[in-house]
Amino acid sequence: MSKTINLNADLGESFGAWTMGSDREILQSVNSANVACGFHAGDPLVMRSTLRLAKAAGVSVGAHPSFPDLQGFGRRRMQLDPAELEAVLIYQIAALDGMARTEGLRIGHVKAHGALSNMACADLGLARTVARAVAAYDRGLILLAPALSCLCSAGREAGLAVVEEIFADRAYLDDGQLVPRSRPDAMIHGAERSLAHVEAMLAEQAIISVSGKRLPTAIGSICVHGDGPEAVATAAHLRVELERKGWRLEPLSARISSK
Amino acid sequence: MSKTINLNADLGESFGAWTMGSDREILQSVNSANVACGFHAGDPLVMRSTLRLAKAAGVSVGAHPSFPDLQGFGRRRMQLDPAELEAVLIYQIAALDGMARTEGLRIGHVKAHGALSNMACADLGLARTVARAVAAYDRGLILLAPALSCLCSAGREAGLAVVEEIFADRAYLDDGQLVPRSRPDAMIHGAERSLAHVEAMLAEQAIISVSGKRLPTAIGSICVHGDGPEAVATAAHLRVELERKGWRLEPLSARISSK
Amino acid sequence: MSKTINLNADLGESFGAWTMGSDREILQSVNSANVACGFHAGDPLVMRSTLRLAKAAGVSVGAHPSFPDLQGFGRRRMQLDPAELEAVLIYQIAALDGMARTEGLRIGHVKAHGALSNMACADLGLARTVARAVAAYDRGLILLAPALSCLCSAGREAGLAVVEEIFADRAYLDDGQLVPRSRPDAMIHGAERSLAHVEAMLAEQAIISVSGKRLPTAIGSICVHGDGPEAVATAAHLRVELERKGWRLEPLSARISSK
Amino acid sequence: MSKTINLNADLGESFGAWTMGSDREILQSVNSANVACGFHAGDPLVMRSTLRLAKAAGVSVGAHPSFPDLQGFGRRRMQLDPAELEAVLIYQIAALDGMARTEGLRIGHVKAHGALSNMACADLGLARTVARAVAAYDRGLILLAPALSCLCSAGREAGLAVVEEIFADRAYLDDGQLVPRSRPDAMIHGAERSLAHVEAMLAEQAIISVSGKRLPTAIGSICVHGDGPEAVATAAHLRVELERKGWRLEPLSARISSK
Repeated sequence: MSKTINLNADLGESFGAWTMGSDREILQSVNSANVACGFHAGDPLVMRSTLRLAKAAGVSVGAHPSFPDLQGFGRRRMQLDPAELEAVLIYQIAALDGMARTEGLRIGHVKAHGALSNMACADLGLARTVARAVAAYDRGLILLAPALSCLCSAGREAGLAVVEEIFADRAYLDDGQLVPRSRPDAMIHGAERSLAHVEAMLAEQAIISVSGKRLPTAIGSICVHGDGPEAVATAAHLRVELERKGWRLEPLSARISSK
Repeated sequence: MSKTINLNADLGESFGAWTMGSDREILQSVNSANVACGFHAGDPLVMRSTLRLAKAAGVSVGAHPSFPDLQGFGRRRMQLDPAELEAVLIYQIAALDGMARTEGLRIGHVKAHGALSNMACADLGLARTVARAVAAYDRGLILLAPALSCLCSAGREAGLAVVEEIFADRAYLDDGQLVPRSRPDAMIHGAERSLAHVEAMLAEQAIISVSGKRLPTAIGSICVHGDGPEAVATAAHLRVELERKGWRLEPLSARISSK
Repeated sequence: MSKTINLNADLGESFGAWTMGSDREILQSVNSANVACGFHAGDPLVMRSTLRLAKAAGVSVGAHPSFPDLQGFGRRRMQLDPAELEAVLIYQIAALDGMARTEGLRIGHVKAHGALSNMACADLGLARTVARAVAAYDRGLILLAPALSCLCSAGREAGLAVVEEIFADRAYLDDGQLVPRSRPDAMIHGAERSLAHVEAMLAEQAIISVSGKRLPTAIGSICVHGDGPEAVATAAHLRVELERKGWRLEPLSARISSK
Repeated sequence: MSKTINLNADLGESFGAWTMGSDREILQSVNSANVACGFHAGDPLVMRSTLRLAKAAGVSVGAHPSFPDLQGFGRRRMQLDPAELEAVLIYQIAALDGMARTEGLRIGHVKAHGALSNMACADLGLARTVARAVAAYDRGLILLAPALSCLCSAGREAGLAVVEEIFADRAYLDDGQLVPRSRPDAMIHGAERSLAHVEAMLAEQAIISVSGKRLPTAIGSICVHGDGPEAVATAAHLRVELERKGWRLEPLSARISSK
């Protein structure tokens, strides 16, 4: 294993008159941005502005498509027919990638958002629809997905490069799923504890559950939050400390092109 | 002048559970389809299905972007800042073109829809924003626009190939504008009268107004309606009769690539 | 049992430029209209026009609220928090009732639409949220719901008058659920067969399943479709024949006010 | 003139996952809240929560309807047919009022939002449509409108009680219109200057323009902003100082019921 790793964050989640996230600040720390495509957040103006900020920061961009659910921020579970979901995802990926081209960029990856991601992580049929949409648009795209999820297997099945991500601020169950937010131990608070959480998993290349169980997997990216008071500080701390400890941080597209 | 001409129609204007238009039938007669991009009509599933129908019919496809106005079908005048409108248009063009790629197609042209087109035909500033969006996405795209409109001049200024269209079922004023629908003589009814209307203008390569005034211009396309009882019959009649009289009907992309 | 019955249909399901249903014709046959409230269909102009048509036809009106899902016509399953769903339903009921007031009408009932209805028929918790929203808005409203469903029990629990409806064109399973549309025997085709289906159930005041099983319940209304080629003919046939056989057809509000 | 006055603010402008404004804090200072109805901001859950906060604070509520334009926050000019606009406004007013009833409240006033208000202030035809919608819903509602605007005259024509408002943080032109935001002197900054600006106009019961011109009118309310760093402080300062100087601050509904 080369000691390279990627930091990613969900960006471009403002909408119209409403602002969300600290995109400019987070972009100083992460290597890759998952950009909302207008279905859970983002609008064409926000998307364009986010692409420009990412380019200026030298951060690679990917599409962050969602169920069509602005009011629910893509967090409400929905049931769409596979054919409709596939079309809905291609639409979003295409819209962002086309906007990126007008800025001299291309998207390098896709990461499913919110309830779509949660559902597809545990439902192989749904995960296959996601992977099929990505592959239909461009087989060269990376699928960025939660480590050990159905999305990873479906992505590989579809012939996509898959990068497995861990969450800097979330604890894991013994089966590799996230501890539900309803539990008091769901979140890892503070930049120091997040760093320790991440370093342990990187060192062992395994998900480490709250009970101490190891679930080996190739960890390719660390997801940090783009919003909230702690987010900027945690992202900066992770970047500085990981680099200090010899990790080279790279955009997702660079990781792939070097393969 | 080579005796080639193009027939275009606005297609893919169904939305969700609602059907509009006789797309399958119209596709038997026209050469180019202006496909709704989800902002005034169309949804990802309708777009995909329309692209497939067009491909099967050998009809070239273009984007038909609109103001963001589903309820008003893009017919309500809106004021958007130029930067926002440009982003809104690129988003739509990119979404359709990206979906087209997944079907082995590319869009060949862009035509503004509804109130956006009406306003941009008479407002050079707005027309320039439209042209800028098209050129930003792809300088190789054709701008399909009402003959003699500001959209034509703005498109040429932006370095785009412009194809000027006339309407088979609309009468013209002396200044080249359409007779407003509020006037009793606004519409040309019936396949025979539409054909005569079109043939006269093609023969003279000029808009011919209700008062008989000639406004010379290079007519490259004829727009037929995709909806309503007369539409299918008129489109078929135009195609058959124009071909019988020696006109070769061609997709828009072909017209350009032959230049 | 007095020999009175009610015919209801879902109306006002056009949206913007898109037309759906044969509202004017169906209103000649039914006694009560379930009017879309803008979340799966209908827009303020369609709602107002539907209310006026219903008033002119002497047909009672009720709200037909839905999940927020225009593109999916309210047919896509969604998961909303109970508090959000309650607010979403009150909003829709209030909007329609307030518009009705401006026409000198009041709504008399509420009937859940599409996936919301399907889910709430089988999920008592969800059914209670629906009933709670109706009761929060006005305890005097009737809840119109599929016979023998959780919506009926939840409505009664909440102190609402419940009217149980059967479907003129749908076959039933032994547990009182509808035969899924995927099965070949799901639909009852033709006005004659629909009439026989309905008459048998009215005569016995029981759901009669495809296997002949009887599930007794007080049937208060018959739902006919408002769309499709058969709908108008079936509704008219049901009305004429039921009246000929001595049934008095009444608006829903009348049924309640006579209690 | 009785020394009573009203402070109003636009509230409930969050949407889904996006927060806007300092509603809880502003509610400590104002007497009346203009509540977004879901078309430019607000969703059913936000509306319900805002109504509850207002009730707890003893603040009267009114509807703040808008063009249908979430992405543009109701600030983009649109052209709707009068019949459609009237229906769109009644829908919003009805939705909020119906939700208010479920909280044991009633709305007492209506104030047009954003571009709709700006356009209707200067366009008597549009202002009449707004007034007609309000009167159609309830002739007992107050129309809260910028002093000296077409909305005031249209409201009176329609038989509505009209309360004229001034803006605490905006300067006026000699014709009573607001100084456009593009001019450097458009805004009145700081709580002290806002108070002085307001007090001078209240004392003379006249709009006082930047050039010192007096335009007499009966000022019934002062609009303070609900968003931004200065808003909470300015609102609190206005309330405390106006009360200290002998003004009684009253909800809008109270003002009317006492007439």
